[in-house]
Amino acid sequence: MNDIKLKILEVTKRRGFYWKSYEIYGGLGGFYDYGPLGASLKDNILQLWKDYFVTKEGFLLLDSPNIGPELLYIASGHAEKFTDYMVKCKKCGHVFRADELLKGHVDNPEKLDAEGLWKNIKEKGIKCPDCGGELTYPEKFHLMFSTRVGMDKNAFLRPETAQGIFINFPIFYRLNREKLPLGVAQIGKGFRNEISPRQGLLRLREFNMAEIEVFIDPQEKFLLGDVRNISLPLLTREGKEYRITVEQAVKMGILSEPMAYFMGKIIIFLEKIGIDIKKVRFRQHSREELAHYSRDTWDCEVLLSYGWVEIIGIADRGDYDLKRHMEYSGKDLRAFRRFKSPKKRKIKRLRARMEILGPLFKNDARKIAEILENMEYEGGNIEILLEDRKIKIPKNAYEVVEIEESVGGERFIPQVIEPSFGIDRILYAILEHSYYERKDSGYKVLKLKPRVAPIKAGIFPLVSKEPLTTKALEILKIIRDSGVSCYYDDSGSIGRRYARADEIGVPFCVTVDYTTEKDNTVTIRERDSTLQKRVRISELPEILELLSDEKINFESLDENV
Amino acid sequence: MNDIKLKILEVTKRRGFYWKSYEIYGGLGGFYDYGPLGASLKDNILQLWKDYFVTKEGFLLLDSPNIGPELLYIASGHAEKFTDYMVKCKKCGHVFRADELLKGHVDNPEKLDAEGLWKNIKEKGIKCPDCGGELTYPEKFHLMFSTRVGMDKNAFLRPETAQGIFINFPIFYRLNREKLPLGVAQIGKGFRNEISPRQGLLRLREFNMAEIEVFIDPQEKFLLGDVRNISLPLLTREGKEYRITVEQAVKMGILSEPMAYFMGKIIIFLEKIGIDIKKVRFRQHSREELAHYSRDTWDCEVLLSYGWVEIIGIADRGDYDLKRHMEYSGKDLRAFRRFKSPKKRKIKRLRARMEILGPLFKNDARKIAEILENMEYEGGNIEILLEDRKIKIPKNAYEVVEIEESVGGERFIPQVIEPSFGIDRILYAILEHSYYERKDSGYKVLKLKPRVAPIKAGIFPLVSKEPLTTKALEILKIIRDSGVSCYYDDSGSIGRRYARADEIGVPFCVTVDYTTEKDNTVTIRERDSTLQKRVRISELPEILELLSDEKINFESLDENV
Repeated sequence: MNDIKLKILEVTKRRGFYWKSYEIYGGLGGFYDYGPLGASLKDNILQLWKDYFVTKEGFLLLDSPNIGPELLYIASGHAEKFTDYMVKCKKCGHVFRADELLKGHVDNPEKLDAEGLWKNIKEKGIKCPDCGGELTYPEKFHLMFSTRVGMDKNAFLRPETAQGIFINFPIFYRLNREKLPLGVAQIGKGFRNEISPRQGLLRLREFNMAEIEVFIDPQEKFLLGDVRNISLPLLTREGKEYRITVEQAVKMGILSEPMAYFMGKIIIFLEKIGIDIKKVRFRQHSREELAHYSRDTWDCEVLLSYGWVEIIGIADRGDYDLKRHMEYSGKDLRAFRRFKSPKKRKIKRLRARMEILGPLFKNDARKIAEILENMEYEGGNIEILLEDRKIKIPKNAYEVVEIEESVGGERFIPQVIEPSFGIDRILYAILEHSYYERKDSGYKVLKLKPRVAPIKAGIFPLVSKEPLTTKALEILKIIRDSGVSCYYDDSGSIGRRYARADEIGVPFCVTVDYTTEKDNTVTIRERDSTLQKRVRISELPEILELLSDEKINFESLDENV
Repeated sequence: MNDIKLKILEVTKRRGFYWKSYEIYGGLGGFYDYGPLGASLKDNILQLWKDYFVTKEGFLLLDSPNIGPELLYIASGHAEKFTDYMVKCKKCGHVFRADELLKGHVDNPEKLDAEGLWKNIKEKGIKCPDCGGELTYPEKFHLMFSTRVGMDKNAFLRPETAQGIFINFPIFYRLNREKLPLGVAQIGKGFRNEISPRQGLLRLREFNMAEIEVFIDPQEKFLLGDVRNISLPLLTREGKEYRITVEQAVKMGILSEPMAYFMGKIIIFLEKIGIDIKKVRFRQHSREELAHYSRDTWDCEVLLSYGWVEIIGIADRGDYDLKRHMEYSGKDLRAFRRFKSPKKRKIKRLRARMEILGPLFKNDARKIAEILENMEYEGGNIEILLEDRKIKIPKNAYEVVEIEESVGGERFIPQVIEPSFGIDRILYAILEHSYYERKDSGYKVLKLKPRVAPIKAGIFPLVSKEPLTTKALEILKIIRDSGVSCYYDDSGSIGRRYARADEIGVPFCVTVDYTTEKDNTVTIRERDSTLQKRVRISELPEILELLSDEKINFESLDENV
């Protein structure tokens, strides 16, 4: 059964779902092309994602560029922290991620630093997996792709779509009429210069993501709504396993409301797109495993032939990102919380003295003044962050004034919960969980859900003869015009044609036979049951549309002739 | 009227269609974010494009990566030829495209080389447009963004999506059951490191494209189908203007069948998405203007406040790309043409002598042998292209053998026609062509076609009072569940709400009033006529769906209460 990888590889390549990019030039590791069926499968997954996570939630969509300026990624922390340790074989020159080589030898090798990795490589006698050669001392390797904009501006390809959302928070907050929670979603590419990607669609250097940043006022209750009773399979960082509802997980203090809410939604979504929910779990990151921006992260993992694989991450990013971008840009990215009734309070504010700041900081003086005058003074020396630099402000460069304000509310930095979906991995997981072979014939089948399936219907004449072929082509045109994706096939036996449809997951096949001429009916065959029902041609377009949209199911379809 | 630019800028930014990226970090020229309305407008354009140019034609979709290996772009010619001339101001340091500065001073400045540009800059006394400073001698500037994959593989961000299609021709040819014409389409990003982008969405460094490569057997007739009578506004490179049908243009020898066919389709498409066809023309490139891969190119231009702007290019790329990729990869990218009856013919073939090739070319010997044995020998010395190098093959490294073959067909390199769409420019053109102000009130309106409009319907209570608000929210839910994108608004006067809907192009507004309670009807107001019709709530979802899909139009809608 573990050769399911190879079987899926064979079908997907032969039928044009996806394949390694640039093969005529010897390939380029970590890049894949989606062909017609794969692109359509991906589109369908994303459409369902958008309907369920964006439209239904009333969230807003952003589409921001792949290329971003260096300063953005200094602010986000990626320029400093987004690295892996790499080792090189002294003999064949191949490179590897140090922690990957230690998997199975030590627990959580991703936690180790260079010294720790090196110690274990020596102790466990790890050699080059390709030629058995000696490995070099682990070196830090930066995972962002860098480029240059214009003549000389350093820039990176985004490692996540999230940063585009954070820096636009004020715009979206305004578009949302200054209400929280506010969800902003983005579908697009992410880029990571993986050291040695070798797992097909599971580890790509250029990949498809769908991310949501949900901005929350921590003082407001987050409602669990209709997912409260969804059952969650949890594995905590202490190694405890639970299968409890969303509501219970919150009550037991294992999950915050928003984390639990999105996990519930994820379970519903995965089931909708055809993932086997019995092979899903949420695993909490250990503290060492957490990304630099995260306070808590749970990976949604699915069981595949590769083992448990992360397909979605749900991270509690706290106020990390907005805070950093405020510091580095000097802009205010806060939300506003209205008090129930206005409050009076004394606060200390700063008045910048430009006659001191000006000569001292020249071009930066105005920016610094702006930052100072937006601060609330809490005593002591003042050090501010301007772009990448920490700047000490001398005492004589400002005055402290105490004022009493009557305030209707206060500004605060929202907390952020981020559900982040790896679309290529989800697509692959769907394929593995959909694949089976018929007990009788051994024929391959992908039991893709109708809404996910790239092609909804095959239209076949029973035999390739007139008048059946002409009639089938007429029906093809009617179905196509109604917007249901379908194709015509008259080559080989009808059994062979059903088999070809099955292996790319076509859920319904329509066959024109000799009865068709007499009473204007055709058969619809359902892929998994292989049952056939006879329906009127006049009703076929509507029936296929309802079946494809999963508004009716095949079992409940009346034969109506 | 020329301030339409500014007016559109104001509305699109305020309402969240699009804005300059990275503004909190001082911006990055040539990059824009699409907000919720812009992203949705773009999606709708692309959906219509896909329906009309891909599904209806039976073409196939590809989704290949943005990052590609250096060798690919050496083969495509971009590494060498994809450059512009740049000048720098000696005083303020700003950089400019040399040919852009000469526009209006000389005809077709893009044809000039460094010397020619320099001569004209001096003669016409061109100075820095920003500060009046002296300009430097023009220098070549490379327009591809470069990066590195893994540790040391040079790579580029694609300047067009087309190359991903060419190198996959054999896969698509097989998926298409070895039939031509074969169309392969790709929607995705393109990247060009423009020297000095300053025209909003019209000149982006990262842009949205939709391209089709149509592979053709030049010996087979290309059918004009149902576009034969579409009228084309043509401007030839000799400066002649025509307004003739697709069929006439072919008969007069101005256009080839496939070029004319796609121009006809483009006219229909542009009208469908709301471009004013009276402001469209096809302009043929002068010979000097042609890209390095093109035998003939016609730009589809629209008249905007910026002047005539190219939004689509239709290029005859001949066999340039497939041929180059065959040369550089050593792989066979040809199609097969079956003869009506098998032919006998004598041909000269080569037999490689490895005992000579081996010592001479070492690791390359096998590749060279393969190329030689696939050649038909036509006499003379042999020079082959292997990757980037021209290699002379000594006479003693092969034998020439004459054989008689009975051949059922022959292999040939298909010709390629490429319609290439600039989606951001098309989107902007739609906005300019849709914008108007009401004669009475001066209110702004975008007369977006229903299928293109990001939001199809606003649902309003006449006044913000019960029971109208609850009823309106109920209706919102029904409409949303039926899949029609809509929103609720109860703030301000009904007139103000209509105006807010108009300026983002919402075609239909549904109003719940005091009659609603009595007879379960609501009014639908059409944006441009401002006419209202009263319909039953029970019929509203279907009516809105038909109106949004443009399956019925508002004028023909019966009041049915």
